[in-house]
Amino acid sequence: MAARGTSDNAGRYANYLWGAHNQYPLALATPSLFTFYQQPPQLKGALVVGISQSGMSPDIVSVIEEGKRQGSLTMAITNSPESPLAKMADLNIDICAGEELAVAATKTYTAQLMAVAMLSAALRDEKSELSDLQQVPEWVQLVLNNQEQMVEQVQRYTFMKQCVVLGRGFNYATAFEWSLKLKELTYTVAEPYSSADFLHGPIAMVERNFPIMVVAPQGKIFQNLYEVMVALKKDQHAELVVVSNHMKALELANTPISIPTAVPEWLSPIVSIVPGQLFAYHLTKARGLNSETPRAINKVTKTE
Amino acid sequence: MAARGTSDNAGRYANYLWGAHNQYPLALATPSLFTFYQQPPQLKGALVVGISQSGMSPDIVSVIEEGKRQGSLTMAITNSPESPLAKMADLNIDICAGEELAVAATKTYTAQLMAVAMLSAALRDEKSELSDLQQVPEWVQLVLNNQEQMVEQVQRYTFMKQCVVLGRGFNYATAFEWSLKLKELTYTVAEPYSSADFLHGPIAMVERNFPIMVVAPQGKIFQNLYEVMVALKKDQHAELVVVSNHMKALELANTPISIPTAVPEWLSPIVSIVPGQLFAYHLTKARGLNSETPRAINKVTKTE
Repeated sequence: MAARGTSDNAGRYANYLWGAHNQYPLALATPSLFTFYQQPPQLKGALVVGISQSGMSPDIVSVIEEGKRQGSLTMAITNSPESPLAKMADLNIDICAGEELAVAATKTYTAQLMAVAMLSAALRDEKSELSDLQQVPEWVQLVLNNQEQMVEQVQRYTFMKQCVVLGRGFNYATAFEWSLKLKELTYTVAEPYSSADFLHGPIAMVERNFPIMVVAPQGKIFQNLYEVMVALKKDQHAELVVVSNHMKALELANTPISIPTAVPEWLSPIVSIVPGQLFAYHLTKARGLNSETPRAINKVTKTE
Repeated sequence: MAARGTSDNAGRYANYLWGAHNQYPLALATPSLFTFYQQPPQLKGALVVGISQSGMSPDIVSVIEEGKRQGSLTMAITNSPESPLAKMADLNIDICAGEELAVAATKTYTAQLMAVAMLSAALRDEKSELSDLQQVPEWVQLVLNNQEQMVEQVQRYTFMKQCVVLGRGFNYATAFEWSLKLKELTYTVAEPYSSADFLHGPIAMVERNFPIMVVAPQGKIFQNLYEVMVALKKDQHAELVVVSNHMKALELANTPISIPTAVPEWLSPIVSIVPGQLFAYHLTKARGLNSETPRAINKVTKTE
C-alpha cells in the first residue's frame, strides 16, 4: 500500500481492518525504494494499492507502475478517475466525493475510509456489516449537529502550542489524521501515537496540564486505553480531550466530545474523525487564521 | 515484524534495508490485532520477526506465538537470550551488547541495527559489504571523539520546547530514534518525519526559527533532502541542525554535525544516530535533568 499524508492515514485504517476482518497482512510501501533507490521489494502475488485524493503524486504512481511491471494486480483508490494513478492501476475505486475544495482534505478522507470499509465488507459478504455501513451518514450527521458546542469547547485551547493524540487499533488512523489536521491548520505541534508506543518512552514529555487528545470509542481496545487515560490524569495530571461513546471515558475528560453510542468499533474511525476535523477547524478560526490558506502547503503535493 | 519503541525504529531500518538489498517486502505488525482483537492476519510463508531489547513485552511475544501457531518460521532479535521472546522463537539473534544499563536504550539500538545489517549482508554474501561492516566501530569512534564540541553545540537549544526531525530512506529510522531520545530524556516535543510526508501538510507548522533536525548523509536520497533543507532555510527561515558527511548540507546548517565521509549510505544509520544520542544526552545535562531517571518510564515496558 502506497499513500502520503491524509491518504496514508486511510491506509492505516486498511492495515487494521483488512488485517482483522479479512486476514490480509498489509505492508505500507516505502516509496523511496521505488524512486530514489530503484531497488523495490518483490511484490509477486500481492495486491498493490495506491491511495491518493488527486491521483497525482509521482512516488505513489511509481509504486503502482512497479507492481504492474512485476505482474501483480494493482488498485487505485482516488477521487480523480482521470488521474495518472487511476489510469495506471488495473482497478480504480472512485470515492465519488465531489471536488475537494479544501486545502486540508476532510470529506475525501472519510470517503476513502468508507471505500476501505466497503471493500472489506463486500469480501466477507456479511449482511449485518452491509447494513451498518448504511447507517454511517446518519451517525456523522449527529456529530455535525454538535458544532455549536465545539465552537465553545475549542476556546480553551486557543494558546495551546503542542499536544499528543492517542488512539489504538482501528482508531490508530484517527489519531494520525486528527493530529495532521491540527498541524496543517492550527500550526499546533501535535504528535500522534498508539497508546502502547506512547508508554514506551514518549510519556516522559507529559508535564502537568499537558494536553492529550484521546480517541476512545467502545470496543475491544477501550478498557486498555481507559487505563492509560486514568494514569495520565491521576499520575501525570494531564489535560484530556476525549472523543468517545463511553460515559466512563467522557467523565474523565476536561473536554468530553461524544459520538453516537450505536457506532460499532470497526466503523468508528469514519465517525470519530469528524469531531477531530471540527475541532481543528474551529480552533483555526479561534486563532484568527484562515483554514483555506494554510502556510506552505497546497492542495496537490507532488513528491518523488 | 513486531517491535515497540526503540526496537521499532530498528524495524524501520530493516524495512528499508531488507527491501532495497534483499527484495523482501516487510509489514510492520499491528500487535493489537494479535492481543485485544485476536484477529491476526495470515502469516503463512512469511518469516515472523520480533525485536526487543529485553525480550519481555507480551504483545511482541504474542506475534511470535501466532507465527508459530500458523506454521511460519519465527526469529527474535534480542539482548536477552533467556527471555520469553528468545525462547519462543525458532531462531534468536543475540545482539551481545552486554547489559543495557541506561533507561533510554542506546547501545542496544546500534547493536540491533548491526544485527539487521549483518543478516542482510550475509544473505547477499558480497565481500565489499562484509568489509564495510567491519569498519563501523571505527566510524562510530570518530563520532564519539567529537563529544566536547557537542557539549557546546547543545547550549543553544537549552530552552527549545519543540522541534521536528527529518530523514528519508535508510535514515527514516534515524529520524524516529533521534526524536524518541529527545522526548524521553529532554522532554522536547520532537516529531519525526519522512521529508516527503512532511511536505504533505506538517510543513505548515514551521515558523521563523522553528528548529528542524535533519539526518542527511551522502547517498541516493541526499539531493532531494538537500532541496527540502534549502526551501526550509530560505523560504521558512527555519533553524537547521544537520547531521551529514556532505559539505553542502553542513554549510547550510545553524548547527552542523559531521560524520565520517567514508560511511556508505546503507550503513549510515548506525553511525548517524550516535551524534543524535549524544545531542540528546548533553541537552539533558544542559537542562539540569538526569538521563538515568526520566519521568514516567522504566527500562522494561510491558504492553499488551
